[in-house]
Amino acid sequence: LPKSFNGNQPKTIRLYPLSNYTFGTKETQPEEDPSVLARLKRLEEHYVEHGMRRTCEGILVCHEHNHPHILMLQIANAFFKLPGDYLKPEDDEVEGFKMRLNERLAPVGSQFSGEGVNEDWEIGDTLAQWWRPNFETFMYPFIPAHVTRPKECKKLYFIQLPRQSWFAALLSFGCWLTACVEVLSVPKNMKLLAVPLFELYDNTARYGPQLSAIPHLLSRYNFEFI
Amino acid sequence: LPKSFNGNQPKTIRLYPLSNYTFGTKETQPEEDPSVLARLKRLEEHYVEHGMRRTCEGILVCHEHNHPHILMLQIANAFFKLPGDYLKPEDDEVEGFKMRLNERLAPVGSQFSGEGVNEDWEIGDTLAQWWRPNFETFMYPFIPAHVTRPKECKKLYFIQLPRQSWFAALLSFGCWLTACVEVLSVPKNMKLLAVPLFELYDNTARYGPQLSAIPHLLSRYNFEFI
Ligand SMILES: [Zn+2]
Ligand SMILES: [Zn+2]
Ligand SMILES: [Zn+2]
Ligand SMILES: [Zn+2]
Repeated sequence: LPKSFNGNQPKTIRLYPLSNYTFGTKETQPEEDPSVLARLKRLEEHYVEHGMRRTCEGILVCHEHNHPHILMLQIANAFFKLPGDYLKPEDDEVEGFKMRLNERLAPVGSQFSGEGVNEDWEIGDTLAQWWRPNFETFMYPFIPAHVTRPKECKKLYFIQLPRQSWFAALLSFGCWLTACVEVLSVPKNMKLLAVPLFELYDNTARYGPQLSAIPHLLSRYNFEFI
Repeated sequence: LPKSFNGNQPKTIRLYPLSNYTFGTKETQPEEDPSVLARLKRLEEHYVEHGMRRTCEGILVCHEHNHPHILMLQIANAFFKLPGDYLKPEDDEVEGFKMRLNERLAPVGSQFSGEGVNEDWEIGDTLAQWWRPNFETFMYPFIPAHVTRPKECKKLYFIQLPRQSWFAALLSFGCWLTACVEVLSVPKNMKLLAVPLFELYDNTARYGPQLSAIPHLLSRYNFEFI
């Protein structure tokens, strides 16, 4: 019998099929920043007043034909994004993140007491941190040498999806764009997509450095496909 | 006072300066495989007899000027490699890995009872798994869809370095090449290098897909530089 090879690993994670999840739409919310420059300007104001911005995004995983897929948003058929947002300065990290997820992507259904009233997001392990050293678009998965005061830290957390859920998916996104989402159907200008790991892997050109690294971040887990 | 932002993270890791470590040489060991093809052929024989090959490599981290550096080997001024090797079929995972590390890179010093007799490697978290679906050179950080019997799994583990150590570094490597190492000095055909994260990041061209992903794998940790 072959010897085992699962030492020093996190608990095996159960993934449910994408078909267990149903998606709908919520109303559109107003856009916070009209441009990237406006967003960086607001970051600078935030920094002066409150210090480093704390941003939280979720990696929500399900499976199709026994291969992990990541739920993400595509805006205007071009730009991809994980669900999440920055925290308000006064918010506690995990509670604040849950509130932000609810605003954007509130699951509703039997185990929840109503839209926007969801205590049941299971915020799991931190999978990555990305730091923004300056008021610029570049972020790095480490604090660059000699940088003592990063301007933003974005954390990516594993989020265990429940066995089944109905998501009231979202609407305005991360304050970059106003949008209306219909999942896995032709959208106005946003879709919620389940993207397989093999599509993200080695595909920085299409998904950018943060999303294309997700297969690496998940590679220490073993999955059980239900 | 800014709110904290360290929820759902592993314990902060202490890194010591590279200058705390001293490196020497050990004798050369004979090369196991003369070529990549010979290695793949031997993998196939191993697979028929014992099933999937289990390979273990260590990510040993220290710091210079408060930036994490990874200890790795450079062979013939070209090819980079982490310390580690495949396990023997009958070996227990963690104990077998420690034995293999000792053969290659035995630390000696006050806390160890002698060269090659080191029970004190601290094998930490699994950071990544890479799978080889076929008897070919390609590996992936996930099991590709419809692959049920991968031929090799390579695990990368975080290895906490002790505060100080004297490494008797090594000599023959991973059965790819015979070599003599002198660390951080001009070698015959191998060097032990401390490579900073910023050098590895986004540098697949030089370091390959596995080593250039290390910054992503470590990005969920916070470090304390001693
Ligand atoms: Zn698919
Ligand atoms: Zn299929
Ligand atoms: Zn350096
Ligand atoms: Zn420096």
